[in-house]
Amino acid sequence: MTDRPKTPTLDRVNLPVDLKALSDRELRHVADELRAETISAVSVTGGHLGAGLGVVELTVALHAVFDTPRDKIIWDVGHQCYPHKILTGRRDRIRTLRTEGGLAGFTKRSESPYDPFGAGHSSTSISAALGFAAARDLTGEGGDAIAVIGDGSMSAGMAFEAMNNAGHLKKRLIVILNDNEMSIAPPVGALSSYLSRLYAGAPFQDFKAAAKGALGFLPEPFQEGARRAKEMLKSITVGGTLFEELGFSYVGPIDGHDLEQLLAILRTVKARATGPVLIHAITKKGKGYAPAEEARDRGHATSKFNVLTGEQTKAPSNAPSYTKVFAQSLVKEAERDERIVAVTAAMPDGTGLNLFAERFPNRCFDVGIAEQHAVTFSAGMAAGGLRPFCALYSTFLQRGYDQIVHDVAIQRLPVRFAIDRAGLVGADGATHAGAFDVAFLANLPGFVVMAAADEAELVHMVATAVAHDEGPIAFRFPRGDGVGVEMPAKGVPLEIGKGRIVREGSRVAILSFGTRLSEVMMAAEALTARGIAPTVADARFAKPLDRELILRLARDHEALITIEEGAIGGFGSHVAQLLAEEGVFDGGIKFRSMVLPDTFIDQASPEKMYQVAGMSAAEIEAKVLQTLGVALVGKRA
Amino acid sequence: MTDRPKTPTLDRVNLPVDLKALSDRELRHVADELRAETISAVSVTGGHLGAGLGVVELTVALHAVFDTPRDKIIWDVGHQCYPHKILTGRRDRIRTLRTEGGLAGFTKRSESPYDPFGAGHSSTSISAALGFAAARDLTGEGGDAIAVIGDGSMSAGMAFEAMNNAGHLKKRLIVILNDNEMSIAPPVGALSSYLSRLYAGAPFQDFKAAAKGALGFLPEPFQEGARRAKEMLKSITVGGTLFEELGFSYVGPIDGHDLEQLLAILRTVKARATGPVLIHAITKKGKGYAPAEEARDRGHATSKFNVLTGEQTKAPSNAPSYTKVFAQSLVKEAERDERIVAVTAAMPDGTGLNLFAERFPNRCFDVGIAEQHAVTFSAGMAAGGLRPFCALYSTFLQRGYDQIVHDVAIQRLPVRFAIDRAGLVGADGATHAGAFDVAFLANLPGFVVMAAADEAELVHMVATAVAHDEGPIAFRFPRGDGVGVEMPAKGVPLEIGKGRIVREGSRVAILSFGTRLSEVMMAAEALTARGIAPTVADARFAKPLDRELILRLARDHEALITIEEGAIGGFGSHVAQLLAEEGVFDGGIKFRSMVLPDTFIDQASPEKMYQVAGMSAAEIEAKVLQTLGVALVGKRA
Repeated sequence: MTDRPKTPTLDRVNLPVDLKALSDRELRHVADELRAETISAVSVTGGHLGAGLGVVELTVALHAVFDTPRDKIIWDVGHQCYPHKILTGRRDRIRTLRTEGGLAGFTKRSESPYDPFGAGHSSTSISAALGFAAARDLTGEGGDAIAVIGDGSMSAGMAFEAMNNAGHLKKRLIVILNDNEMSIAPPVGALSSYLSRLYAGAPFQDFKAAAKGALGFLPEPFQEGARRAKEMLKSITVGGTLFEELGFSYVGPIDGHDLEQLLAILRTVKARATGPVLIHAITKKGKGYAPAEEARDRGHATSKFNVLTGEQTKAPSNAPSYTKVFAQSLVKEAERDERIVAVTAAMPDGTGLNLFAERFPNRCFDVGIAEQHAVTFSAGMAAGGLRPFCALYSTFLQRGYDQIVHDVAIQRLPVRFAIDRAGLVGADGATHAGAFDVAFLANLPGFVVMAAADEAELVHMVATAVAHDEGPIAFRFPRGDGVGVEMPAKGVPLEIGKGRIVREGSRVAILSFGTRLSEVMMAAEALTARGIAPTVADARFAKPLDRELILRLARDHEALITIEEGAIGGFGSHVAQLLAEEGVFDGGIKFRSMVLPDTFIDQASPEKMYQVAGMSAAEIEAKVLQTLGVALVGKRA
Repeated sequence: MTDRPKTPTLDRVNLPVDLKALSDRELRHVADELRAETISAVSVTGGHLGAGLGVVELTVALHAVFDTPRDKIIWDVGHQCYPHKILTGRRDRIRTLRTEGGLAGFTKRSESPYDPFGAGHSSTSISAALGFAAARDLTGEGGDAIAVIGDGSMSAGMAFEAMNNAGHLKKRLIVILNDNEMSIAPPVGALSSYLSRLYAGAPFQDFKAAAKGALGFLPEPFQEGARRAKEMLKSITVGGTLFEELGFSYVGPIDGHDLEQLLAILRTVKARATGPVLIHAITKKGKGYAPAEEARDRGHATSKFNVLTGEQTKAPSNAPSYTKVFAQSLVKEAERDERIVAVTAAMPDGTGLNLFAERFPNRCFDVGIAEQHAVTFSAGMAAGGLRPFCALYSTFLQRGYDQIVHDVAIQRLPVRFAIDRAGLVGADGATHAGAFDVAFLANLPGFVVMAAADEAELVHMVATAVAHDEGPIAFRFPRGDGVGVEMPAKGVPLEIGKGRIVREGSRVAILSFGTRLSEVMMAAEALTARGIAPTVADARFAKPLDRELILRLARDHEALITIEEGAIGGFGSHVAQLLAEEGVFDGGIKFRSMVLPDTFIDQASPEKMYQVAGMSAAEIEAKVLQTLGVALVGKRA
């Protein structure tokens, strides 16, 4: 633990209104102290560091100029909001970030009136801000709507849709493009090179002197100063700007760490804007903290760390992460099958595809934050004879759902979906939980849907996907490390639609889909000590179901319990449908389906979240006993 | 029926290769005859007329210049593909369009090798074409990838994502922007005004003489002619073009009905393009057929019609359409509650919101083809104190799924989803079926999900949504006309989570969710005639379930059968979960859940599609008998 930084000026700020009493010079002190406090807090909690450090000055300037919470600041993604939380009455809890019962790692409506719109996923802020602007104009309640969005987030389709609509509606709306040339990885795409050209080699515009004039887009009496400033502005941009073509007034590029400049511009925009304005601020992710500035990912997300050295402390693990197992398996398969290509949506590191890209740079496509395109681009490659693996987190796969239905499933194209972060994910909380993928994929005709019970199974599922040329196939696996099983030398394709018995028993059969299997095995041990030795099976496939296995389990046991790391509508529902159609319920069977509860679960450790969800070994044991009508007395053996 | 047009030149064309033998002058004849043949065919079948007429010259030019099917033409949406189908070996079946067993109304891979990528939804073509281009470059198989996309489709986020990625990858790729200033409705958005500025007042560029030079973006030895032509090009655009900023070479605007011009440009692009090229063609929807050109929607979709007069023949109906009932109900509610606003994604007519917009122009937002934005924009307005009704077709709602989860459900914002075209939709086939919404919405915590059993119920459900301020709520209703029940004077909010008994009986209870209720009632009549008088209930809510009603039905009957116009994972799965958790299966009950089958159903009449799906009265009757173990002997009474 490091000593807390000295923050005499910041200590005078409990809420944004306290900033109004400070001089611009004092605001500069606030910014410096806010940066130090942010570094100190994240060193204790871990979390998103680089993004917050990049917007320290912007955070101070926005709260100093605008009247929050009446004016709405909407932070895109929300992972850059730690300085914002410190300034908006949450400093006393800032060292509880991302922990159970603590502050969320993103903005969250239920946490503070200063968070008018929560986030977690990217590129939603302009749509939301435009919604606030429309509501303001209809209700007459006034107030500004300000979206702060990174250049990576700006490349997503929904940000474009929102800009297009905002340019059409012409409502007063402020969009601040926080251009740090980084999302989680360096951004890709034509928009990104366009933004670079906008300020490459050009000095930052000096708006301080000519602030009023420079913003000549505003409908004040026309002044010569304004005309000159506007022309100066034009001269440093490349042709007309894309944003002006979309109906926005463009201001920039400006140095997003020059507080004086930011204050001047925001004050002028506040005083005089009528329609949509885009302020293009150049910032540096990790600004002001050398270990972050120098890191490859600019300190995007860190574990707890030593403030002086930047060294991170991470718990040692004996097993490889699922992500790494997937990536390594895919590389091996791709060495044998040159039709294999890989697609990621701005998450090369998170999905492990950085390993694939190193080995096969021409066969790996990072399309940027663009899940809709990622899916259909994959479908196009599949139609062209390739065998794409589209690697996305479960929660982001939701962004490409229509494309999965319309472009992949209906056309039965052999796109393989590697679904990482399936199930509950821990510190990132509800916005990042992967709860719905089984339900929304397994009802698509022709889809094959698998879940890996452990990291060895994952290796085989990658091989199974490679071998499955007949149509789409998906396999899901959780965040974090494997369970430490022995790894196979090579993946062997599984028989489609066949599960496996893991442990033979009687009275009750527990049919697991995914990595709850290890908890089920623990529960089975405890139950055996109580004299009830359950059968345990690993379904492997939610679609097609292993009908034979399931009907046999139903026939041979008094009770059948399914379990999965997903919401209702998925594996358990498919099993219930089979049992119904086969008339198994007619004669009676104690059937239960353990699914994620009907609630969004706040951040905590994954273990604790599964406990809250009623899915750890003890709850599985209790469920079996309750189902069998056996009283739960005494401690487990 | 009208006489077939005389088409001597077109008669010589069976496949695109036959065009290669024709002179440019003969190609002009082919185009004229193709237009006449298209009009004649659609007069017989009904369908999308205006879009096809707008691309007749483009279709001829593309097939004359490129080598299909080796070169891939990808028609965005696919509803403009009738002329393409006529030229690609399907003329003999063109008068079976959109009918059972006939040609699909969109492109379809399984129908022809000339349809390399099917469609139905918009804005997928550039992603798919880029996928083909990537596959071509990796496999070395050669061939061009050409996307033809309308200006409306271009405004969707996924098209922007694809352009952004294409500009980055720099692969040879041809995008033809078919700019007719119309999607289904006149397009909205800043992009649309931008496109208008690109050619407003400027003469079309004459590329014929300077064709080689005009395309000076191509890496040929530099010529003075090329420089001049390029400067000429620049002079007619507004600043730099948005497309050039995204890394595309821009050619245009050109007259998309000037065949000679189109041929010249396509030949040059084919010979010399290296990177991505955008050809901006101005066309007229409905071109060459006065009744279509003059129609408000430019003949977007028509019933069968008289070729001479353009008069459409539509079967008379005694009941109002569900769409109209929704819209009229919403207008009434909005007169009482000024917080109500409405959002449509480029479907003001299809969703009935044109009626709302007439009455409340400031409270209706057409955001363009932009479902992701539509949902989050609605969420922003809800957070700002309004009560948005987001009206989308079930199949297009899939485009905004992540936004529903992340921005609406997690934040429990009172956005109301009016889901039109739920269930099977007839002539538009599998791409437009609304099969999955109940499954993907009902597992979201805090969501209320309703389905209207008839048009009177729909009125009450609109009122229920208006009254439900606690969080998100959705109600679904089918395509087409109501069943003709008496309409209530005003909507009365339903009690959340309460169903209703429609008919009391014994032995078997049929629990219906949605408009299958009328078929269930017919089946009930037939069963009663057989001596089995079923209880029939209307669930109204898939979430929250009417637990009391369902458990009572289960307790009092030998069998319980659910039915819904949706895929597995929805209403029936939620009922099964309830029965399991309550131990109802322990003692045995004949439970069955009738859902849409695990297949994509091709176009036919909706009635026939439901028969294929096993969901009309006769199949419901059979299901009851089979479940009860009663032999199905003799005809129904």
